[in-house]
Amino acid sequence: MHYKSIAYVLGSVSTLTGLFMLLPVLVGLLYGETFPALVLLGCGVGCILIGLPLVRLKAHFYNFSVKDGYVSVALAWIVMSLLGALPLALSREIPSYLDALFEIVSGFTTTGASILPDVEALSHAMLFWRSFSHWIGGMGVLVFILTILPMADSGASFSLMQAESPGPVVSKLVPRLKASARLLYGIYLGLSVLQLALLLIGRMPLFDALCTTFGTMGTGGFGILRDSIAPYSPYLQWVITIFMLLAGTNFGIYFLLLYRQWRAALRMEEVWWFYIIVALSTLFISLNLLATQEFHSVREVLFQVASIITTTGFSTVDFDGWPLFSRFILVLLMFVGACAGSTGGGIKISRLLIYWKKAGRELRRLAKPNLVQTSRMDGKRLDESVEQGALLFLVCYVLVFFASTFLVALENTDFTTAFTAVAATLNNIGPGLSQVGPACNFAFFSPLTKLVLIFDMLAGRLELFPLLILFAPRTWK
Amino acid sequence: MHYKSIAYVLGSVSTLTGLFMLLPVLVGLLYGETFPALVLLGCGVGCILIGLPLVRLKAHFYNFSVKDGYVSVALAWIVMSLLGALPLALSREIPSYLDALFEIVSGFTTTGASILPDVEALSHAMLFWRSFSHWIGGMGVLVFILTILPMADSGASFSLMQAESPGPVVSKLVPRLKASARLLYGIYLGLSVLQLALLLIGRMPLFDALCTTFGTMGTGGFGILRDSIAPYSPYLQWVITIFMLLAGTNFGIYFLLLYRQWRAALRMEEVWWFYIIVALSTLFISLNLLATQEFHSVREVLFQVASIITTTGFSTVDFDGWPLFSRFILVLLMFVGACAGSTGGGIKISRLLIYWKKAGRELRRLAKPNLVQTSRMDGKRLDESVEQGALLFLVCYVLVFFASTFLVALENTDFTTAFTAVAATLNNIGPGLSQVGPACNFAFFSPLTKLVLIFDMLAGRLELFPLLILFAPRTWK
Repeated sequence: MHYKSIAYVLGSVSTLTGLFMLLPVLVGLLYGETFPALVLLGCGVGCILIGLPLVRLKAHFYNFSVKDGYVSVALAWIVMSLLGALPLALSREIPSYLDALFEIVSGFTTTGASILPDVEALSHAMLFWRSFSHWIGGMGVLVFILTILPMADSGASFSLMQAESPGPVVSKLVPRLKASARLLYGIYLGLSVLQLALLLIGRMPLFDALCTTFGTMGTGGFGILRDSIAPYSPYLQWVITIFMLLAGTNFGIYFLLLYRQWRAALRMEEVWWFYIIVALSTLFISLNLLATQEFHSVREVLFQVASIITTTGFSTVDFDGWPLFSRFILVLLMFVGACAGSTGGGIKISRLLIYWKKAGRELRRLAKPNLVQTSRMDGKRLDESVEQGALLFLVCYVLVFFASTFLVALENTDFTTAFTAVAATLNNIGPGLSQVGPACNFAFFSPLTKLVLIFDMLAGRLELFPLLILFAPRTWK
Repeated sequence: MHYKSIAYVLGSVSTLTGLFMLLPVLVGLLYGETFPALVLLGCGVGCILIGLPLVRLKAHFYNFSVKDGYVSVALAWIVMSLLGALPLALSREIPSYLDALFEIVSGFTTTGASILPDVEALSHAMLFWRSFSHWIGGMGVLVFILTILPMADSGASFSLMQAESPGPVVSKLVPRLKASARLLYGIYLGLSVLQLALLLIGRMPLFDALCTTFGTMGTGGFGILRDSIAPYSPYLQWVITIFMLLAGTNFGIYFLLLYRQWRAALRMEEVWWFYIIVALSTLFISLNLLATQEFHSVREVLFQVASIITTTGFSTVDFDGWPLFSRFILVLLMFVGACAGSTGGGIKISRLLIYWKKAGRELRRLAKPNLVQTSRMDGKRLDESVEQGALLFLVCYVLVFFASTFLVALENTDFTTAFTAVAATLNNIGPGLSQVGPACNFAFFSPLTKLVLIFDMLAGRLELFPLLILFAPRTWK
């Protein structure tokens, strides 16, 4: 283990978290919220003071292994969460530290599950910090660090990026990794600015527009109003719907479009399927609602479908009241998740495509054992190791899912609550159904359940392996 | 495709089904139920008359492929079900043919899910036929045919046996396949006779004892009383519990014990884990019941655990009223299922062991990419193709599970009902929770849902591939 390098990574994460906290300090000062601003300032300066000495360590990343990458990323996210929860707890706006931790992990992992019974009681500074954490976590904090810090070993950078980026493969957009990371953040920032502008045009107040943009582009889902997005105008809801979908799309396609590689862009199977699934789900739910109860509008259905499949978790209606078929489609979408290389969570469409192709191939091979074939994706051959990794992911996913539900079921709620609480956190969505539906919150759970769900949120965001590897005894030898 | 060979297989299945129907004819005559007996006799003779000409076809099994094996077995089970439902429907004891089909598929696949609101209204002859179908389906009808019919090509026999036997690998107990099949049926018959004797000693009436033995040894679960097993004495419940567990154990261990290969028997990891899981589940549920509500007795808990994990589905209490944690353990056990090479359903413990080992190995390889390892099971090396087959099974299982729940959710019941109705049929258990709980039945579902669940029962019993291959367009070219 490269303890020195890991300390260096943790130091830079701590410093960066501290720097990020200075932004909500400004918000607090603007709104005349002196106490929250002071708390945030204190915490921010503290994080920087802890982090800086570690960053000054002369860490070499020579021979930095994949395992080191996973461990660093997992620890970085844990440290970031532990520090990020401090302002919320110290300001007494969320009196329990565990609750504050739940809230900020939910923020960084872009889950959006909340323990707040009344979100509007929070100060602007803390609301901003909470929503801003979505934006930080969305594209990844290590990826951000890669854009600014000099790192000698590109293998090490790749290990870190691979451990933090969602999806079965990391697509290097351009040969140099740092340039790739910068490009990704550039696209992310560009889309965010665009959304902000469109929200402002729709007369959303600046503060609301900023927080909503963070929640949308990070596919997070923290709302700053009691009724999430429902109070906003249809125009604003349309803007949010479109940007949720854009944030859930594989960012590789924006790169291809920027570089005018139209044909390659059109070939991205994952993106096609993403939009096909969104369209079909909207159609099915609309028909189901039409047949069974009052149907509101396609906008509301599309909003909810986009919100769930991109794992954002905003809501405009209480979909827990929808008929079973519609709710079941939403639960399915929770697992499907967004595209790889997006800011969304879930299993990811590209993995499902890999499973689908693999299953078809193996079934054909059952019939004709001598058949040798390989799967293709986006017109290219799929590497065997990618397939194996995706299958391993599925096995671990099922294990973590059932182990978590097992622990959550210790609380005598109901089947749907336990099941969807885990589904909503492991897939980084936010609201589930029944007692954790969009009109409810996660406050009533016991500390044990909250810890389990915190683990699930982190495991979901980092796609299991980094967190699971922490528990392997061999890792620490 | 070997159409002639497949016709030969279907012919022998039809003949055999007809012969099996003659047994309940005797029961009907003994109880003075002339009409049901006549219907069964007519159907039986009809099946034999249809089947015999096909058996006389000069079919050669040369070059009979794995695919031919799968297709034959799938079609054989469909034909057997279509024919087996006739007596129930023609006697008007189950007036709707679809309901009769549901009931007999539930019988042959050893599921035990019933559409009967009042089982005690059926004649003895039909009750016997219904329970007897469990015994026929438990060990497999093709395996039975292999024990009696001469088949030149041992490769063909192996294809058929592989397609019908539960578990990731078919263990040939002895080198010659026909001898293996006979040995399996011998053990099956021996255990059945032993259970019957023990039930009779406990003063259970002969008719009840026969039907209960069929339901236990086939891990089926059809009861002949309204309250399933609840009305019987504790002694009888203990006997049934033990024989459910014995029927859910890998039959390979009985062979090893018969041949005094103690060390090899002790090495069977699957059997160890099976009993460890049973013990832990019983412990957890007992503690949970002790903590939350009136606790009856360890017997009742163990009975329920054994009934669910072996996928039998008998009940002595309405476990739908148990607290969430206990119900969740039962739902988990539904998926775990029994051992490979037993008469039980579910995913099977040996597959879970393969996943567990594979996941551990690949996680270690994530940390050290150059590590080369293979998994071992029962002290022997696990073949790569077995692992791949088990992973393919998992992918197909998840796909079939969600596709089925999707269709079942079209009926506006509740989440738990839709989820556990599919879980209870795909894993061949019988009762689920909520509206399909042990105190309810499946009669209220729409014809579409019943068809989906019939598919699930067959797919679960034949472990997916034979049924899925029927839908591949290539199969029919």
